[in-house]
Amino acid sequence: MTEDAPESNNEMQTRLDMIHNDLVEIKPKKDINVISKPLPMNNTSVLIGFPGSGLVGTIALQYMVDQMEFEQIGTMTSKFFPPLAMMNKGVINDPVRIYIKNDIAAIVADIPIHPMICYETSRDIMDWIEQFKPKEVLTIAGIITNEPEKRVFGVATTTDALKRIEEHTLLLPIGSISGIASSLLTECKARGIPAFGLLGETVNAPDPRSSAATIEVLNKMYNLGLDMQPLIDQAVEIEQSMGKLAEEVQQSAEQSPKKDLIMYG
Amino acid sequence: MTEDAPESNNEMQTRLDMIHNDLVEIKPKKDINVISKPLPMNNTSVLIGFPGSGLVGTIALQYMVDQMEFEQIGTMTSKFFPPLAMMNKGVINDPVRIYIKNDIAAIVADIPIHPMICYETSRDIMDWIEQFKPKEVLTIAGIITNEPEKRVFGVATTTDALKRIEEHTLLLPIGSISGIASSLLTECKARGIPAFGLLGETVNAPDPRSSAATIEVLNKMYNLGLDMQPLIDQAVEIEQSMGKLAEEVQQSAEQSPKKDLIMYG
Amino acid sequence: MTEDAPESNNEMQTRLDMIHNDLVEIKPKKDINVISKPLPMNNTSVLIGFPGSGLVGTIALQYMVDQMEFEQIGTMTSKFFPPLAMMNKGVINDPVRIYIKNDIAAIVADIPIHPMICYETSRDIMDWIEQFKPKEVLTIAGIITNEPEKRVFGVATTTDALKRIEEHTLLLPIGSISGIASSLLTECKARGIPAFGLLGETVNAPDPRSSAATIEVLNKMYNLGLDMQPLIDQAVEIEQSMGKLAEEVQQSAEQSPKKDLIMYG
Amino acid sequence: MTEDAPESNNEMQTRLDMIHNDLVEIKPKKDINVISKPLPMNNTSVLIGFPGSGLVGTIALQYMVDQMEFEQIGTMTSKFFPPLAMMNKGVINDPVRIYIKNDIAAIVADIPIHPMICYETSRDIMDWIEQFKPKEVLTIAGIITNEPEKRVFGVATTTDALKRIEEHTLLLPIGSISGIASSLLTECKARGIPAFGLLGETVNAPDPRSSAATIEVLNKMYNLGLDMQPLIDQAVEIEQSMGKLAEEVQQSAEQSPKKDLIMYG
Amino acid sequence: MTEDAPESNNEMQTRLDMIHNDLVEIKPKKDINVISKPLPMNNTSVLIGFPGSGLVGTIALQYMVDQMEFEQIGTMTSKFFPPLAMMNKGVINDPVRIYIKNDIAAIVADIPIHPMICYETSRDIMDWIEQFKPKEVLTIAGIITNEPEKRVFGVATTTDALKRIEEHTLLLPIGSISGIASSLLTECKARGIPAFGLLGETVNAPDPRSSAATIEVLNKMYNLGLDMQPLIDQAVEIEQSMGKLAEEVQQSAEQSPKKDLIMYG
Repeated sequence: MTEDAPESNNEMQTRLDMIHNDLVEIKPKKDINVISKPLPMNNTSVLIGFPGSGLVGTIALQYMVDQMEFEQIGTMTSKFFPPLAMMNKGVINDPVRIYIKNDIAAIVADIPIHPMICYETSRDIMDWIEQFKPKEVLTIAGIITNEPEKRVFGVATTTDALKRIEEHTLLLPIGSISGIASSLLTECKARGIPAFGLLGETVNAPDPRSSAATIEVLNKMYNLGLDMQPLIDQAVEIEQSMGKLAEEVQQSAEQSPKKDLIMYG
Repeated sequence: MTEDAPESNNEMQTRLDMIHNDLVEIKPKKDINVISKPLPMNNTSVLIGFPGSGLVGTIALQYMVDQMEFEQIGTMTSKFFPPLAMMNKGVINDPVRIYIKNDIAAIVADIPIHPMICYETSRDIMDWIEQFKPKEVLTIAGIITNEPEKRVFGVATTTDALKRIEEHTLLLPIGSISGIASSLLTECKARGIPAFGLLGETVNAPDPRSSAATIEVLNKMYNLGLDMQPLIDQAVEIEQSMGKLAEEVQQSAEQSPKKDLIMYG
Repeated sequence: MTEDAPESNNEMQTRLDMIHNDLVEIKPKKDINVISKPLPMNNTSVLIGFPGSGLVGTIALQYMVDQMEFEQIGTMTSKFFPPLAMMNKGVINDPVRIYIKNDIAAIVADIPIHPMICYETSRDIMDWIEQFKPKEVLTIAGIITNEPEKRVFGVATTTDALKRIEEHTLLLPIGSISGIASSLLTECKARGIPAFGLLGETVNAPDPRSSAATIEVLNKMYNLGLDMQPLIDQAVEIEQSMGKLAEEVQQSAEQSPKKDLIMYG
Repeated sequence: MTEDAPESNNEMQTRLDMIHNDLVEIKPKKDINVISKPLPMNNTSVLIGFPGSGLVGTIALQYMVDQMEFEQIGTMTSKFFPPLAMMNKGVINDPVRIYIKNDIAAIVADIPIHPMICYETSRDIMDWIEQFKPKEVLTIAGIITNEPEKRVFGVATTTDALKRIEEHTLLLPIGSISGIASSLLTECKARGIPAFGLLGETVNAPDPRSSAATIEVLNKMYNLGLDMQPLIDQAVEIEQSMGKLAEEVQQSAEQSPKKDLIMYG
Repeated sequence: MTEDAPESNNEMQTRLDMIHNDLVEIKPKKDINVISKPLPMNNTSVLIGFPGSGLVGTIALQYMVDQMEFEQIGTMTSKFFPPLAMMNKGVINDPVRIYIKNDIAAIVADIPIHPMICYETSRDIMDWIEQFKPKEVLTIAGIITNEPEKRVFGVATTTDALKRIEEHTLLLPIGSISGIASSLLTECKARGIPAFGLLGETVNAPDPRSSAATIEVLNKMYNLGLDMQPLIDQAVEIEQSMGKLAEEVQQSAEQSPKKDLIMYG
């Protein structure tokens, strides 16, 4: 018997300790499957838009990735997502798409995230993003007011982070934020990742003008130099074509059952 | 003590590493049990029909496998399927049947898949199919319009794949697809498997004429040379006998509870 | 060090391989607990009766085991079963009982199986039965018609199996079967175990006359020589005493919540 | 190398076999946490009272443990229990309490057990009790009749066990029992533990007089020599103070959601 | 071979025993994620306030941590929490915050805990707290009466613990407590950790005056020397700003679905 054996045994015990520890703290399996190339390490800004009021985030980010010719590098699937896919000239879209261009990544979704699964969705998306040590996360959502304006309100995870957006957005003195935008920001704050929310003033219908207002903030934050005129020009067309999507998304949210998810009340 | 022992220990550590890794990423168990002979490797086209609007896919593919004398090679069971079996002259049918003839496989179902389980059903079916490296997947569904025509609309997972069907089907400029057909296509797109959806224009009743229209597309795509006349001749009979099935399927979908599945809204 | 050690290590690796394999494909735990002596190997016919329309199967098989003095060898418990026990002269019955006499086993239940758990119940019961390599499985259920007759319809899992019952029962040209009887037959068909369903024409109340008609089929199939007169004589009494059971069973089915089980619709 | 090593390896293989076996048949984790000193081995009679109709069991057993100065040795917690605690002069009670005096143990609960969790509760309680090889289990419940009498009906798990109570209680010729009392008795019968149910005739309100009637049976069975006069004297007071509890318990049962538990119907 | 090897093997067996034991009694994974610096060992008093009637606990403890400049050391996230975050001048708050100052810790929440998850929340919070061997736990809740007074009722886990608060609070002769306060106290009692509940008499609206009354008790118990005047001065403002929160919290509780959580009744 060489002296390696006891060492091996010791190492084995270490392994077994690890098994032991894992067994009593088994990590939950992912609810969201990310199928994607990796993001660039260390300095990526991740912009996220899920359909919500006015489809503000989805329209804004899809416009950005189309105009700037971002590369699609991935998709997500989940038992929590409703069985719904948009199709365009005979080709279906991935319901959630991951794009990259230089140091900006964009996650654009055609499907709404129900309040019941906001936590899991945010947790799993941030688990995936966090491994690439992102510079910051920004989520775009709509906020319904009774005003005709298209203002953009800003919220950040910390006072320090707030400096990044306070010149470009309006601040609400007090208030609350809910849904997937709330979960993403809460999750980033808990992980110590700087994050921002852009809340475009909107109505309960596809709202490319509110999206354009949030893009103007992106232009300032990221020097995108995006021309809003094409978006404004297509506004009526988008309102019509997306109106059908907004309805379908809305109906899907209301009708599509999710599993392991139950509401009370 | 031979020198084998330390090696054994090393190997054991490797094994334990594997245990360790498996423990923290335990794969989810299957929700759908496939009990079947394997499909032929590498070049099989898999045609899939679940009951939906007009029972278009079920009628079309059952007609195909009956007329062309496909061999049944398997079945599926699942806690998600409603407890319902069709019987024919005293013999029950497997609720989901897998058939093969040469390089064409068909999966034909008598039970509807509720929106809540479309993801799991598609994922598990594709997990099984993918291991045989299929050439392509095609799913047939119905699409309800207010037109008397029996047109067939086509959708594909990619622009490349679209070329395979664009001459034989009509393309919708924009729109959405939902249900099991949406999940199958989304799952195939995420896995990089070329896939097509044939959407037969139909009504809310068994519709062998719409099925016949989709079979004409299959004839062109796969040179089946299937004669539609017997199907048309049996249309009234099928409408009657399947009408009962359509009702039962419909009632089953509405009444049969599924487990671990809850709707919200 | 003996030469056993390396072997032991090899065996251990084999063991660890087995652990490894099990971990990534952990078998689902049983939902139904069978507490029973084993069935005789290789040649047992298993007769199964759960309460359904007319309580046909429960009444028929309980009459058979009582008259022929079968031995009770086991019971089943499950989180899926409603908390309900019948009591007789101060002694409670096991809600599900397993009996044996020679090469005939009987499973008789006082509790209904909700559609939501038919799959799990059938799967776990058949997992238990299958290990004894049974000759065949037969389940008795009721089928409600608007006819005054007490006919018995038959269904089998295969054309071969059908020969066993086609002389003793009527065959339905086309139709469907649902509930626990459907699940048991589907499960047997998927496992390649010959199985039969006897569907006694009945009404929505305890129906010893329909049970008697199914026992006549059993008499022919198994040469039981059971005298139906006592059952017919007790019909009124059974209808009264079981009527209370039928109600309780019915109420239990409607009111008792089951866990991990949710309906949609 | 000593000859211990191969043995050790053999033992290790045995261990690994056990791991292997456990992995493929992982025992479900407990839903009920018992935090208690052990019961005396081999000869303990365990009396169980959960709130039900008339709060008969809870009042009877709490009166017994108070009057006879049983020692509280434990408590139970569970995700299935509603978040409700009784308080008495500023001190909260454990919702479920375990008491012991000589060879009699008592489990007294202030919280109702919903039909959905009767199985798990009974299974986990009996898992805990069974390890002490109890002499017998007795559960007290209420049975609502339209009679003004306070009779006590008895039920046992076997004909042998019945002898223990048949002189002290009335026997119902036929009937059914439901709820936690049914589950406890069914579970005991399946495990071969003699068990009894005392069903006190009661009304839908706290009923110390029915509780007194059941205590008289306990007096005879266990020679307790308990004086019922104090209980009768306090009847009005108990009816008032417990009336509030009965309401709260009732409301809690109706309103408190349980998790992993869903009703159908 | 040294004599270490058998020892190692023995130790390994011990490890394997531990694996074995863990496997058959796998500890449930945490439902609440605590992301925090540790609490001081051995002598910390932990004060807990979740939003309930009158938001009494949340207002009182937030006032305390703000006025006394506690340090925030942690946060909690959970799939059970509704997706809701308060924001203040453009910065979002962690929905649940952990603070420390000297030997007093405070857990302050902006989100309500539904009855369905009180057990898991209390269990997981106490699992985290217990490892620091706290001196005591105190939870503040509201109790709605029809009186205009702002009395504070006290409840403790044991008669000994009661001495700590009986001079500063009123005792209810009999009664019950429900919700998260009940679960926290029950959990502490089961773990043998002294715990208290302060129940501030309140109404169904933000109630800083009731909060002030509970702070007066804290002043006496912990010699905080907190001046209530600023709180009283801000009462109207708090009632207004928190009124919106109270509504949102209320709506969130009613509307936000929780997963794996189902109500019955």
